[in-house]
Amino acid sequence: MNLNIELLREKYLSGELKVEKVISSIFEKIEQTKNYNIWIYTLNKQELEPYLKNLKTKKIEDLPLYGIPFAIKDNINLENIPTTAACKEYKYIPKQSAFVVKQLIEAGAIPIGKTNLDQFATGLVGTRSDYGECKNSINPEYISGGSSSGSAVSVALEMASFSLGTDTAGSGRVPAAFNNLIGVKATKGVISTSGVVPACRSLDCVTIFAKTLSEAKTVFNVANKYDKEDIYSRVYTPSIKKAKKEFTFAIPKKENLEFFGDEKAKDLYIKAVEKFESLGATAVEIDFEPFIESANLLYSGPWVTERYIAIKDMITNHEETVNKTVGTIVKSGEKIDAINYFESEYILKKNRKYVDEVLEKFDFILTPTTGTIYKIAEVNANPIQLNTNLGYYTNFMNLLDLSAIALPAGFRKNKLPFGVTIVGDNFDEELLFEYSSRYLSKD
Amino acid sequence: MNLNIELLREKYLSGELKVEKVISSIFEKIEQTKNYNIWIYTLNKQELEPYLKNLKTKKIEDLPLYGIPFAIKDNINLENIPTTAACKEYKYIPKQSAFVVKQLIEAGAIPIGKTNLDQFATGLVGTRSDYGECKNSINPEYISGGSSSGSAVSVALEMASFSLGTDTAGSGRVPAAFNNLIGVKATKGVISTSGVVPACRSLDCVTIFAKTLSEAKTVFNVANKYDKEDIYSRVYTPSIKKAKKEFTFAIPKKENLEFFGDEKAKDLYIKAVEKFESLGATAVEIDFEPFIESANLLYSGPWVTERYIAIKDMITNHEETVNKTVGTIVKSGEKIDAINYFESEYILKKNRKYVDEVLEKFDFILTPTTGTIYKIAEVNANPIQLNTNLGYYTNFMNLLDLSAIALPAGFRKNKLPFGVTIVGDNFDEELLFEYSSRYLSKD
Repeated sequence: MNLNIELLREKYLSGELKVEKVISSIFEKIEQTKNYNIWIYTLNKQELEPYLKNLKTKKIEDLPLYGIPFAIKDNINLENIPTTAACKEYKYIPKQSAFVVKQLIEAGAIPIGKTNLDQFATGLVGTRSDYGECKNSINPEYISGGSSSGSAVSVALEMASFSLGTDTAGSGRVPAAFNNLIGVKATKGVISTSGVVPACRSLDCVTIFAKTLSEAKTVFNVANKYDKEDIYSRVYTPSIKKAKKEFTFAIPKKENLEFFGDEKAKDLYIKAVEKFESLGATAVEIDFEPFIESANLLYSGPWVTERYIAIKDMITNHEETVNKTVGTIVKSGEKIDAINYFESEYILKKNRKYVDEVLEKFDFILTPTTGTIYKIAEVNANPIQLNTNLGYYTNFMNLLDLSAIALPAGFRKNKLPFGVTIVGDNFDEELLFEYSSRYLSKD
Repeated sequence: MNLNIELLREKYLSGELKVEKVISSIFEKIEQTKNYNIWIYTLNKQELEPYLKNLKTKKIEDLPLYGIPFAIKDNINLENIPTTAACKEYKYIPKQSAFVVKQLIEAGAIPIGKTNLDQFATGLVGTRSDYGECKNSINPEYISGGSSSGSAVSVALEMASFSLGTDTAGSGRVPAAFNNLIGVKATKGVISTSGVVPACRSLDCVTIFAKTLSEAKTVFNVANKYDKEDIYSRVYTPSIKKAKKEFTFAIPKKENLEFFGDEKAKDLYIKAVEKFESLGATAVEIDFEPFIESANLLYSGPWVTERYIAIKDMITNHEETVNKTVGTIVKSGEKIDAINYFESEYILKKNRKYVDEVLEKFDFILTPTTGTIYKIAEVNANPIQLNTNLGYYTNFMNLLDLSAIALPAGFRKNKLPFGVTIVGDNFDEELLFEYSSRYLSKD
């Protein structure tokens, strides 16, 4: 069933469709796609009941997400439903939903279940889970991308109108690219992370997957709300910049572009740049080294220590129950010193000054979302390096406090999708939505 | 000689006074006050010559600081003049002046010399120096306060119209309080720290000492300029808050006030609160624990590591040349881990949320600048603990990203001055200047 938010809303308003019908069609689809390892938990009838019942007392007109089914990455709490972060031993049952989940439910959205992920949101592949490797929605031999693997695939295969992911290193953008979706990674702090299992607490973002930009924007408008209980929460105050008729955008200079030998991806990136240019824009090459230097700090520097802090008890007392690759990465965070922290911060601050200059000159930056895509078997054979490759264009984003939207950008001959990411300063979301909309509307 | 900026300017404009005359009177005074250990270096005639010559080609009207003598803390570079940071072995001769010094000189100010400080700006006492203990301007048995000791005393004893200090833990406020001066500790980053020896690079501020608020403001207007070479530089964008006729301000609740047994200081603080109230304000007690908890992190947490990074070579290869107390503190920064860093950051972020709430409710916060003052002999007998006591109301300021002005608040019976500090959010300087002006204008 087509779960487009505007379409469902129209049908609900006209009385043509009932929420219960939508839900039952989704559960049929869930049965048919079990081998994709998308879900860690799906709500049973009894668990769904209160959400459906709640709608009965409400008017459709009052609720922007009335009866809209959504999926929740399983590191984000849903009241009375287990959270596992893809680690069976870690499982707990939260008494209340995450702040952002509450906002969505209050707006009428219906939670379908909790989705698979790279364990503790550590990974960009979707294979590091106690609940099986999540498969790509277009070709199940390929990775779904991660860590928000199930959230992306559940939307791509029409079991949810939208879904929540999280994004520390690229987890809200890579799976969007690999499943031909929109992935909104808004400014750090504008969507609360209260009730989310931390990866790097100072960097974590909750993200939105949807099939269309306007759906993503509808959800973003509900999801961004200041949360005084979240120490990293920030009030969403859109920048005053306006989208222009003629604009310029920055692209990495040729020497900094990296497709890991994937020539088809390179062609699709060039096409995306040209498509933006055809809207009245000029693309200008910039030195991308400061972005890459920043990106490299995410897993080689002190932010791994935040991952260690987040699951210290698991890694210390139940190491055998943690995914081996994830455990290796997270454990390395124990021994990092504060000297490393501050020296890394100085590098980041220097690079952020460079980014300031770039964003003063240009309306946005356009990068590939990833250089390439891999088969599940390839990643299993070389889990750390291939994962690192996938973060080449994404790892710097939160360290440099930027906002980004991952956009579909065509298909390869093998039908696997390619994606680009439009990058702006923090609080540039409106601008990015506008330019993205022009890009996607153009044939 | 009275070196008030407005007075000198008037006399320069009328032709009643020449800059050379002012300078020579200053050098007489320097000779008379040698036993105060104020200066580490004073410029000789030849070194002063270019600054004086430069003025000959300029119009007084064009330069807000034309012929205004100023002192520079000896951790801030002045072209071709040694910088020591109060450590003889550390001495180097910078090729160019610090960014802020350049701004002041371009505005017509004349550098008189480099002033004594607690070595590497580590201390609030003014006794930790290879160049002698800097003495209090009112009673030389007492400490001058630090670390910007000589900068404060040089202004208090009329050898400079204003001076530059630095302030990481309170070094721009404590010596102001102890010498009856204004001390402006503006928002982190609005005065460049390029060409300043770092203490904690992520926290350091350059500060201004002056006898009057309007002089301090004149200097601040010249000194705050964005510096693209300083990774921590921020554009000064004053908050839109306006000073009100009727206002409320926050004061620490009684249990959080700490005067270390100094009852006279307590009386003077209560008087200062009452004086503010007499301006049409209401003082409201708040829980001050989150400020104290934050303050305690400065020397017990990872920010000591920044001090270690700043002088790693000195402490590793020339430890015997470093002041013993300073060395003990700084060395403790080597072994701190990144876990400690992030756990401290989480505490700070939580406390900053509390500060957000306080500053939403109240127009500013008013605290004592220090609870008490000590004799030099007392500090020498107990150098670490008494220094810690002096930071009780100051150590949190930069960690919580606040702006502050230290204000004179009367004298004890022993004639030693007491000071209060008006605290605002970052970029609240205009507001603080306005409320401070009302307070100081009132009899």
